[in-house]
Amino acid sequence: MIEVKWGKLKVFINEMMLSLGMSEENAAVMTEVYSRATARGVGHHDIYDLPGRIKDLSEKKLNPKPEIRSISRFNAMESYCGDNGPGEICSNFIVERAMELSEEYGISICTICDSNHYLASAPYVEKAAEKGYLAILFTKGSPIMGAPGRKEHVISSCPMGFGAPTNKEYSIVHDLCLAYSSYGTLAQKVKLGESVPSHWGMDKNGQPTTNPAEINSGTVAPIGEHKGFGLAVLGEILTGILSGGQIIDEPHPQTGETGVASQAVIVIKPGTLISEDTFKERTTEMIDRMEARAPGIRIPGQNSSKSKHKIEKESRMYLETQLVERLNDWAQKLGVNPLENKNL
Amino acid sequence: MIEVKWGKLKVFINEMMLSLGMSEENAAVMTEVYSRATARGVGHHDIYDLPGRIKDLSEKKLNPKPEIRSISRFNAMESYCGDNGPGEICSNFIVERAMELSEEYGISICTICDSNHYLASAPYVEKAAEKGYLAILFTKGSPIMGAPGRKEHVISSCPMGFGAPTNKEYSIVHDLCLAYSSYGTLAQKVKLGESVPSHWGMDKNGQPTTNPAEINSGTVAPIGEHKGFGLAVLGEILTGILSGGQIIDEPHPQTGETGVASQAVIVIKPGTLISEDTFKERTTEMIDRMEARAPGIRIPGQNSSKSKHKIEKESRMYLETQLVERLNDWAQKLGVNPLENKNL
Repeated sequence: MIEVKWGKLKVFINEMMLSLGMSEENAAVMTEVYSRATARGVGHHDIYDLPGRIKDLSEKKLNPKPEIRSISRFNAMESYCGDNGPGEICSNFIVERAMELSEEYGISICTICDSNHYLASAPYVEKAAEKGYLAILFTKGSPIMGAPGRKEHVISSCPMGFGAPTNKEYSIVHDLCLAYSSYGTLAQKVKLGESVPSHWGMDKNGQPTTNPAEINSGTVAPIGEHKGFGLAVLGEILTGILSGGQIIDEPHPQTGETGVASQAVIVIKPGTLISEDTFKERTTEMIDRMEARAPGIRIPGQNSSKSKHKIEKESRMYLETQLVERLNDWAQKLGVNPLENKNL
Repeated sequence: MIEVKWGKLKVFINEMMLSLGMSEENAAVMTEVYSRATARGVGHHDIYDLPGRIKDLSEKKLNPKPEIRSISRFNAMESYCGDNGPGEICSNFIVERAMELSEEYGISICTICDSNHYLASAPYVEKAAEKGYLAILFTKGSPIMGAPGRKEHVISSCPMGFGAPTNKEYSIVHDLCLAYSSYGTLAQKVKLGESVPSHWGMDKNGQPTTNPAEINSGTVAPIGEHKGFGLAVLGEILTGILSGGQIIDEPHPQTGETGVASQAVIVIKPGTLISEDTFKERTTEMIDRMEARAPGIRIPGQNSSKSKHKIEKESRMYLETQLVERLNDWAQKLGVNPLENKNL
């Protein structure tokens, strides 16, 4: 592991994005998204995804200078085209816009097509929660998840999440996909040599397995079987259909690419219905009541907040040597100062 | 089993509700809700719940003449008090109102506190879908579900559902709770002598079990463990908090009762952003694409629609003898004509 200064890491991300041709505004968004995701301490869907994103940007698979344009709007609903920009820029755009609309209408929904992977929902919904909003964000990509008992890949696993403000030292932040496990988590289990419950998925022949590597080359199953599958259908409708984007395995009309991402966000401004103070008091009381019933219960957002506070307090974190090397390789190629680090 | 004429069953429900003091309008709502739920052919959360509801109405535990009143409103958001009316009346009210608001704003949210059990989400979201809306309905009641690996009952299982229009012979209708199994399904499994997967819940000592009776006296687990638990937290916020109602195990300020139900519905009018025809074409294509990848896949709403079409075509259905006897006992007490039936 390598120790990395927290402030330096942010500067590094920002400089990399600028060197890839991004505007200062968009580089700042990317920096915030990767910082927030990384501070959670999850080890995937965060800084560990950055080399891949840099590669795609450098090869222009992702557009570093997207011109997001309005497709359609009707009062509290708006849809946009993301111009093949990074999913981070696209998602941040609709969340910001939906927050504005919710000030006017109380609730709003914004969608964006021609987008890409949004990394994780936590960075966006956490920011919204810190500003007093209840935000529910959905994304879709390729059909990688099965239906109950089926080995075929039929639908996106519907990565999603929500955030809500509290008076605790953390906001409620829930970041999930509707499969028992993301392929990221499975890869981590493989690395750790761990097995997984047999209902998490099946191997490529449609047989149940507890080997995460076999599920990785097979099919992940939806949580609660038909329950999670149906919720993924809702996600596909909100993202792929309402955005005017692609659905299931539909090819993009211009590029022919399948699995093009779309996002949708519903934002509620609770302060318009009950006061923001009351809302926070009530979410806090909700947590207190659950903790009174089951002491030590894990509340969504609690663990990731502890990680964040530790990193911010110590102004440093630890990254795998291989990741830092890959990032520094890219830095050299792009003429950016490498991550200053101390090999432990 | 007893054969019951479909038209007669509806008349029977309506007359029972009128005899319990309901207005004609509300009796018609109850009739529609129980008819739609029963036509799905599930065998619980439908007509099988009616004797219990009649009992509560006759004992005035539920208010048969609720005066629903506005608590707060801000453009596309409104909250109401249900005056301890049946959850069916309260839920129908907010769904109807949210549909109206979505015509004006594109998306809306309506909530209601001081409500009761809504029976199931399907009747309301199915009706909304038939009218061209995308409706997502949530309810809450007592904390009956555990957190991951915990035997304590910490939160409502967040019964919910959504409906979306299609050009198929059925609307997409997904009706679920966020526990692996409702207590209704468990009771059915007990009746059938079936076992259940060990991750569905635990016995009263916190031990995993495959015996549905032991889970019934223990704790049901959230789907996908922390994933489903977090989604239930979202449900609790939307229903209990946004409505101004009660949360977790909070007692009602007037009655001291705990587990008082609240509902919330988000309604989207897709026709305001993309045309209603386009929306239906796209949901239909979404289904077609999934069916092409996995022939015979079960789409939410498909099975229940087959049941409904069969019942409507044959103008009859079959109910358990014990249920018909209980209903007829109530009919006699309330001076209503009994269900005409033919014992098979």
